[in-house]
Amino acid sequence: MAKRVVILGAGYGGVKCAQTLERKSSRDETEIILVNKHDYHQFIAQIHESAVGLRDNEDIRVSLAEIFDETRVRIIKDIVLHILPKENKILLEQGTVTYDYLVVALGSEPEYFNIPGIERHSLTLRSLNSAKLIRTHIENRFAAFKANPLKREFLTIVVGGAGFTGIELAGELADWVHELVKEFDLPENLVSVINIEAASTILKEYDRQLIENAYHVLREKGVRIVTDTSIEEVTENRIELSSGEVIKTGTFIWTGGIRANRVVARSGFTSAVRGRARVNKYLQAVDYPNVYIIGDNAFITDPATGDVMGPTAQVAIQGGYIAAHNIMADARGDDLKVFYPRELGRVVSLGRNVAVGQIGKKFKSKGRVAGLLKQAIQWKYLYSIGGVKLVTKKLLK
Amino acid sequence: MAKRVVILGAGYGGVKCAQTLERKSSRDETEIILVNKHDYHQFIAQIHESAVGLRDNEDIRVSLAEIFDETRVRIIKDIVLHILPKENKILLEQGTVTYDYLVVALGSEPEYFNIPGIERHSLTLRSLNSAKLIRTHIENRFAAFKANPLKREFLTIVVGGAGFTGIELAGELADWVHELVKEFDLPENLVSVINIEAASTILKEYDRQLIENAYHVLREKGVRIVTDTSIEEVTENRIELSSGEVIKTGTFIWTGGIRANRVVARSGFTSAVRGRARVNKYLQAVDYPNVYIIGDNAFITDPATGDVMGPTAQVAIQGGYIAAHNIMADARGDDLKVFYPRELGRVVSLGRNVAVGQIGKKFKSKGRVAGLLKQAIQWKYLYSIGGVKLVTKKLLK
Repeated sequence: MAKRVVILGAGYGGVKCAQTLERKSSRDETEIILVNKHDYHQFIAQIHESAVGLRDNEDIRVSLAEIFDETRVRIIKDIVLHILPKENKILLEQGTVTYDYLVVALGSEPEYFNIPGIERHSLTLRSLNSAKLIRTHIENRFAAFKANPLKREFLTIVVGGAGFTGIELAGELADWVHELVKEFDLPENLVSVINIEAASTILKEYDRQLIENAYHVLREKGVRIVTDTSIEEVTENRIELSSGEVIKTGTFIWTGGIRANRVVARSGFTSAVRGRARVNKYLQAVDYPNVYIIGDNAFITDPATGDVMGPTAQVAIQGGYIAAHNIMADARGDDLKVFYPRELGRVVSLGRNVAVGQIGKKFKSKGRVAGLLKQAIQWKYLYSIGGVKLVTKKLLK
Repeated sequence: MAKRVVILGAGYGGVKCAQTLERKSSRDETEIILVNKHDYHQFIAQIHESAVGLRDNEDIRVSLAEIFDETRVRIIKDIVLHILPKENKILLEQGTVTYDYLVVALGSEPEYFNIPGIERHSLTLRSLNSAKLIRTHIENRFAAFKANPLKREFLTIVVGGAGFTGIELAGELADWVHELVKEFDLPENLVSVINIEAASTILKEYDRQLIENAYHVLREKGVRIVTDTSIEEVTENRIELSSGEVIKTGTFIWTGGIRANRVVARSGFTSAVRGRARVNKYLQAVDYPNVYIIGDNAFITDPATGDVMGPTAQVAIQGGYIAAHNIMADARGDDLKVFYPRELGRVVSLGRNVAVGQIGKKFKSKGRVAGLLKQAIQWKYLYSIGGVKLVTKKLLK
C-alpha cells in the first residue's frame, strides 16, 4: 500500500519536496498531501519588491494547482495547529490528517530577542500580505505628513537588521521613496531610510568585497547605515538605540532575526537555537525518524564543515529534495542520502536592477550584471517548478 | 494709482475672481495678489476620485503659474493666519500684506456638530492631501485585515453624511472596493460601504426623481444607505448610531457638514450660521465694504427667493466674478452689481461613468449620459480657466 507523505508548508522546501515525490515515485509507492495556509506558493525571495509595490500578486506567487497534478498531490488549504509526532497525526484548524512520513517545511517567524515594544511596534517582511502592509503603511504615513507637516518623523523609515532581508529591503525602499516624494509632492531631503544593525557590519556572513560594494551602493542611494548598534526599546514612532540616539520614525520594519515556526516549538521536537529542531544528517528529526524537518525550522549544520546553515531558499530547496529522496529510499528499503548543503552563490539585490553577488569562490559581480543574475536565478527557479510555461507566463504578463 | 486687490484662496471662487480682474482691469487700475497655501489650484469637485486613486496629482490640479500671467497676478504661497479688517492688513505665516480691497475665498472646514470623538476619529475629504490620506488609509486597513483576519471591521468603510460629497464618495468607494478585493485577495462579501445620514433622505436639496435614481444606483453597487439616523459617538473603529446600532469600522469619513474657514471666524466678521460671514447683496462683508466674502465662507441668500445658497463650486465661481466686477466698479465709481446666484444644474457622480443630474427645471438625466455631462462640466471649467491648451493637456495625458 502507498505510504502517505504529508508535507506541511508550500514554501521553497515544501514545493521541491512534493515535486520530487510527484516526479520520482509512483502512486503505488506514495500518496502525497501538501498542507498550506494559502492555495499558492509565494516567491519569498522576491517579496521585498512587493513591499514597494513593484510586483503584482501574480508576479510573486503561483497557484499550487498550476504546479501540481492534483490527482497526484492533494492540496489541503488549512492552518497547522499542532503536530502529534507520537501519533503520526497533524491537527489542522479544520480537521486532522495522519501520515506515514511527515515533512515539516513551515515558514519561519520573526525573532524579537525580547526587545521591549518591538513586536507591538514593528512591521515584518515575511509574506505577500506583510509586504502589502509595509507598502500601504508607508504610503499612509507619507499622506499623513502632508496633512500634518509638523510630523517630520512620518517621513522616516527604519529597517532593523542588515542581513540579507534588511539590506534588500533598504535598497528597494531607497529607490521607492524617489517615486513617493513625487506622488506626495515632498521635498526629498525630508525623507530618510535608516538601516540599523547590531553586528559590526552589514551582510555579516558575506564576502568582504561584496559587503564593500553593498555599502557603496546603498550610501549612494541615500540609505543611512548604522552598525555596531542595537535597538534597546521601541515605542510608537520612536526607537531607542544602544548609542543613546533616539530615532523618531513613522515606520519601523524588523528584519533582524528569525526563529522556527511556533508549531515546531510547541510540538515537542528537540530544539537547538531559536526553536529550530535538531535533525540528523538525513534531515530526520532526532526523536522521530519518519519526520523530516527542512528549511528554516531545522538546525542544519554542514556535515563537511560543521557550519550552521542560514535560512536561505537554496538550503530549503536542497532539503526538500533530500527529504523526498530519503522518504522514497526508506520506503524501498534503500540507503538514505546524507544532506550536504551546497552554497551555489549569493546575490543580494540593492534596489532596482542593481545587485551584488558571488557564485562559487571566484565569480564576483556587482551592479547590473549581478542584477541580471538575480533575475536569472528567479527564472531558473520558475523553470524548475513550472517549466517553460510558467517562465513565459510570469515574464510575458 | 492702482488699487491693490488681495484674494485669499485659489479655489473656484478665488481663481475666477483673479482671472476676471486680470482680464477686465488694467495694470493702472488694479494690482492683483493671490495668496494660497499651495502653488496650485485644486479641482475639489473631482476630489472624490482622488480618494480612490483614480486620479494622478496632475489630473486634479493645475499650477497657478500656468493659469495666470505672473507679471499681472502676484502669487504668494503662504498660509493665512489672521485678517485685520480695520487695518486693511493680512497676517501670513511668513509676513504681512496690506490691501485696498480684499476677497476672502478661503476653503471651508468640516463641521463636527460637537459629536463626541468625531474629529479625532474621522477622515475628511477636502483637498488632494486629505483624499490621499483616505486612499492610503483604506488600503492599509485592507492589508491589515489580511495580516489579521479576525479584524473584520477593517473591511468596513463608513461615510458619514449623504449630501453631495458623501454620495459621490460612497459611489466611488463602492466601485473601488471591487478592485481592492482583487488586489488584496478578499471575498467580496466581507467588504461593506455604509452611508449614514441624519436627514430623512440622501441628497436632501435635490429633486425627488434624481434622489430615487441615486438610491437605486448606489444600492445596486452594494452601498448600505442608512437615513434618519444620526451619529452619537465615534471611538476608534466604532460608531454609535441614534438607532442604538453600533458599527465597527476600520475607516470613517465625515462629510456631514462644513463651516467657514477658522480665519473668517476669528477675524471678527459678523457671522450667521457655522461661522459663515454675513454679506450684503453685493457680497461685501456687512461691516467692511472693501472686503468681499465669497464661496463657502459667506452666508449667501438668493435675493430673488431668499433661499440660502449651498457651498457649491457654481456659487463660488459666480461670487468670484461678482466680487471682481464690484471691485472694479467701486474703483471706477460705477454702480455695483447685485449677486443673483444661478443654479445652472446639478450633476452628482455615482462612481465610474455614472451620474444623475438635472439642468434647469426640465432636463433630467441619469446613467452614462449624466456621467458624460459631469465630465463636460469639468472640461468647460478647464477651458474657462486655461483655454484649449489646458483642456487638451489634462485630457491627453
